Amino acid sequence: MIPVRIGITLGDPGGVGPEVVLKALGRPALRPEASFVLFGHESVVASAERVSGLRLDRARFPIVEPAAVPSPSGGPGPAADGGAASFAYFEDAVRAVREGRISALVTGPVSKAAWGLAGLPWRGHTEYLGRLFPGAVMAFWSDRLKLALLSHHLPLREALGLITRPRVHAFLIGLAGAVASVRPGSMEFLVAGLNPHAGEDGRLGREEIEEIGPAIEEARAGGVRVRGPIPPDVVFRSALDAPETMAVGLYHDQGLIAFKLVAFETGVNVTLGLPFVRTSPDHGTGFDIAGKNRADPRSMIAAIDLAVELALKKAR
Amino acid sequence: MIPVRIGITLGDPGGVGPEVVLKALGRPALRPEASFVLFGHESVVASAERVSGLRLDRARFPIVEPAAVPSPSGGPGPAADGGAASFAYFEDAVRAVREGRISALVTGPVSKAAWGLAGLPWRGHTEYLGRLFPGAVMAFWSDRLKLALLSHHLPLREALGLITRPRVHAFLIGLAGAVASVRPGSMEFLVAGLNPHAGEDGRLGREEIEEIGPAIEEARAGGVRVRGPIPPDVVFRSALDAPETMAVGLYHDQGLIAFKLVAFETGVNVTLGLPFVRTSPDHGTGFDIAGKNRADPRSMIAAIDLAVELALKKAR
Repeated sequence: MIPVRIGITLGDPGGVGPEVVLKALGRPALRPEASFVLFGHESVVASAERVSGLRLDRARFPIVEPAAVPSPSGGPGPAADGGAASFAYFEDAVRAVREGRISALVTGPVSKAAWGLAGLPWRGHTEYLGRLFPGAVMAFWSDRLKLALLSHHLPLREALGLITRPRVHAFLIGLAGAVASVRPGSMEFLVAGLNPHAGEDGRLGREEIEEIGPAIEEARAGGVRVRGPIPPDVVFRSALDAPETMAVGLYHDQGLIAFKLVAFETGVNVTLGLPFVRTSPDHGTGFDIAGKNRADPRSMIAAIDLAVELALKKAR
Repeated sequence: MIPVRIGITLGDPGGVGPEVVLKALGRPALRPEASFVLFGHESVVASAERVSGLRLDRARFPIVEPAAVPSPSGGPGPAADGGAASFAYFEDAVRAVREGRISALVTGPVSKAAWGLAGLPWRGHTEYLGRLFPGAVMAFWSDRLKLALLSHHLPLREALGLITRPRVHAFLIGLAGAVASVRPGSMEFLVAGLNPHAGEDGRLGREEIEEIGPAIEEARAGGVRVRGPIPPDVVFRSALDAPETMAVGLYHDQGLIAFKLVAFETGVNVTLGLPFVRTSPDHGTGFDIAGKNRADPRSMIAAIDLAVELALKKAR
């Protein structure tokens, strides 16, 4: 087996990221096929050690400090120096993975507000990666449910406007290609309908007949293993506990209501369609509980484990 | 303790209703404070006995046959005589509960299609009851999650049009009044937002600021224990396993995606705001599995148990 090297960014220094990274790396079950490198400030790691009472083995988990960005002054909450720091960790890690020095990337949570204070134009990791790699697709991944969304942070009325035949078709083709890079040929996609009972043959809405159904047919004709539209209150249950099935939601909360119920604290975000694997925990910076040793590391643990698993698959 | 008498309708004779009623009444754990009466044809009970291999104790569970409607010819699937029969069972039971001969009503699943074939103008039990009792509110009830919906069987785009300050306010006032008849004063309502992150202070949609939030404030000023708008992917988790909390969804699938995930097979529909208790299993006629002894009685069991529990509370 080819060993893989995983880069982990600490995320925002004022959030729970550094704490959950330390907690995740401190457990005994880390996969032996993987080695790890951290992207962050030594001072931020030291601060997380004080919060968590844990000690990072720096021989086993070396720290790459950003060259030009000073250590943040610290304290919880969004701050310009914290935003600049978390972006520098991320940028360094992306460079490392593009240059082949690491094979996968796990990103700690950053603050959109802090990035804004630091004058950065991106809303987050995914947007930055999406500009570098236009085929990137964000998916939600857990043992119980896998999920992709046609749209993310849009008002619901705007999101409805994107549910057109060409967009749904293009999304399914792109998603299937992106997933194939980590699960070649095996994944079946179950697409949600939009209306109650998936429109009930047009009596409760026509998007299923006019837009979603034809897009699915077209994608299937193009070789994608895909079924739907399936009633929204059925589709996520159908995709549950089915490892080779991914549900496709048509808007943010349609999918995330389901995902957060079944995978809270253990769900992972994964960006597919990149030349490398990238995962992240499915939670934010948690500024309200930062510095209190109260952060739950399960989602970070799951993000690291998934990065190792997918990177090993890619390396084969 | 005042004993209560529960009426149970068999539902559509060609569906799984008679079978799940027999299975539910055959278990040993039936509450001793309650007595039961069935509304249906003797011939339909006999047929369900053959299917299930169970025998109904007719001394303990008397059967009220409809006066004017002949026994249906039988066979699974929607049929005019089955629709007429299931409506007669229901009408007889509603009359019995209005006349005080029974104190609560559990309805077996009926077929909208069969009611249509029988020339009946109602889409189902709830619509019929809603015309007789304009304050009726349908809720979804399970040990894990309680849920009410601002709208039910409407295309999503139409449902969005109902999310206005006066409608949301009137719904909350009506809901709180209806719930108070079974849970006096104790229930807190958590209202979902519409947009991702409940609009994120207006950046991802303005309905929370302009409609939903003010409606909630107004209802709270009117004495309702209510909070929100809460992000849609958070609110159902917040209401989970909290017996004195009911989630309020703004459209059909927002709530039912959550409910069907956590309460599948054990969820119950309950119509609140009636002068009596009415519950029903949270599934349909199951024509595809009728007559095969494959129907799961858990939702009917939960519907009967909830009817007994709420009727006992009302009787106190």
